[in-house]
Amino acid sequence: MLRNIKLIISYDGSNYFGWQKQNKLPTIQEEIEKALYNITGKNIDIIGSGRTDTNVHALAQVANFQTTSKIPAGRIKCALNANLSTDIRILSSEEVDLDFNSRFSAKRKTYLYQIYNDRVSSPFYEKYSYHIPYRLDINIMREALIKLEGEHDFKAFMSSNSSVKSTVRTIYDTAINSENKLIKIEIAGNGFLYNMVRIIVGTVIEIGNGKKDITCIEKAIQTGQRTYLGQTAKPQGLFLKEVVY
Amino acid sequence: MLRNIKLIISYDGSNYFGWQKQNKLPTIQEEIEKALYNITGKNIDIIGSGRTDTNVHALAQVANFQTTSKIPAGRIKCALNANLSTDIRILSSEEVDLDFNSRFSAKRKTYLYQIYNDRVSSPFYEKYSYHIPYRLDINIMREALIKLEGEHDFKAFMSSNSSVKSTVRTIYDTAINSENKLIKIEIAGNGFLYNMVRIIVGTVIEIGNGKKDITCIEKAIQTGQRTYLGQTAKPQGLFLKEVVY
Repeated sequence: MLRNIKLIISYDGSNYFGWQKQNKLPTIQEEIEKALYNITGKNIDIIGSGRTDTNVHALAQVANFQTTSKIPAGRIKCALNANLSTDIRILSSEEVDLDFNSRFSAKRKTYLYQIYNDRVSSPFYEKYSYHIPYRLDINIMREALIKLEGEHDFKAFMSSNSSVKSTVRTIYDTAINSENKLIKIEIAGNGFLYNMVRIIVGTVIEIGNGKKDITCIEKAIQTGQRTYLGQTAKPQGLFLKEVVY
Repeated sequence: MLRNIKLIISYDGSNYFGWQKQNKLPTIQEEIEKALYNITGKNIDIIGSGRTDTNVHALAQVANFQTTSKIPAGRIKCALNANLSTDIRILSSEEVDLDFNSRFSAKRKTYLYQIYNDRVSSPFYEKYSYHIPYRLDINIMREALIKLEGEHDFKAFMSSNSSVKSTVRTIYDTAINSENKLIKIEIAGNGFLYNMVRIIVGTVIEIGNGKKDITCIEKAIQTGQRTYLGQTAKPQGLFLKEVVY
């Protein structure tokens, strides 16, 4: 009997060339498919909720796959973990409806971006944050994030080499808070264009530093021009935090 | 003119064989002395507040060294950081009295120990915590820690291969708190025997799990026998947090 299994996965992206399978390069998807082969003896393709780039992390990526294997759904978690490196952990495995698709059924995604804001960088956040040694104004950054909320054409907030049908997306919610030297930015939306979160964060950092004026956001949304915005923030600070279905 | 320079240092101990210089093995002390050689052209011995073992980390280790170099004290920080790997960071450098000695002038040391308490381990805490997959009773662990406070003969709380004049130490303060899946234990004292914090934590974990009774602590203090206590907790969870002078 064919079953559809949903996985929730946490990974440290530092040692991988992103989520998506690539020829000969180690990726998260490939590591999980190899582990699935080890426990089922079958080549199984898994579907992720979306790609993550090299050095981008996940607190709770979602993937699913169809299988005729008889291993109880809840036990697949332990069996996979026993066959994976500790920088990839399956947090849960459960059976779902056959029509569930991690990518197309996703209703809401939340990303977390971490900035380490101190004169000297931290050995512990080097791979998990963007080190900004100068002062940032959290309040103006919060205002800038709020201007992004709602349904907009985010064409300007996309790396130029990507092709999609529509560049309209809805941002449901944004948040920024600072604790000790760590600034956490969270952005939730119905979907994100390629590098959209990193371009938003890079822009918000330049607004927080006074290098750009907050009006650049409206100008970018109105004109669709990438040049109004800041640099793409580095991948190390980015975490896929949650996917809701 | 001879000056005495005090450094505050943060490091990720994962890639080093501890603090103390050793023949041919990479250590934190040696890396810093090599960087000092690069900036001063002189072989300089640095004195740390104490050793840390392989895989043990520091949020704020303290070290000092004497030099005739004319580099302004505050600039030594940047010069050293430019010559060190990013897993070792000098947080501050300042001139202190010539009689200041990082080891012998220390009045109070605080260690932090992190436990990751969830069924599945975390890719992000693998090198920075001890993964305990079973339930722990924080309240009984707190009671056990409080029993350690004060001046006691901690002979039982020491790895057997170490030799010291006196095994009497004072624990000033202990704390335990749990946030999400992370349990943080902090222990402050006037000094610690070899592996003392890790033996305390290993014992407190076994008390929290019901494997040992809380009375084992008094028995160990009274008899000096290591056998009453739990296993030595793994080094990855341990951080030297603060040294007060």
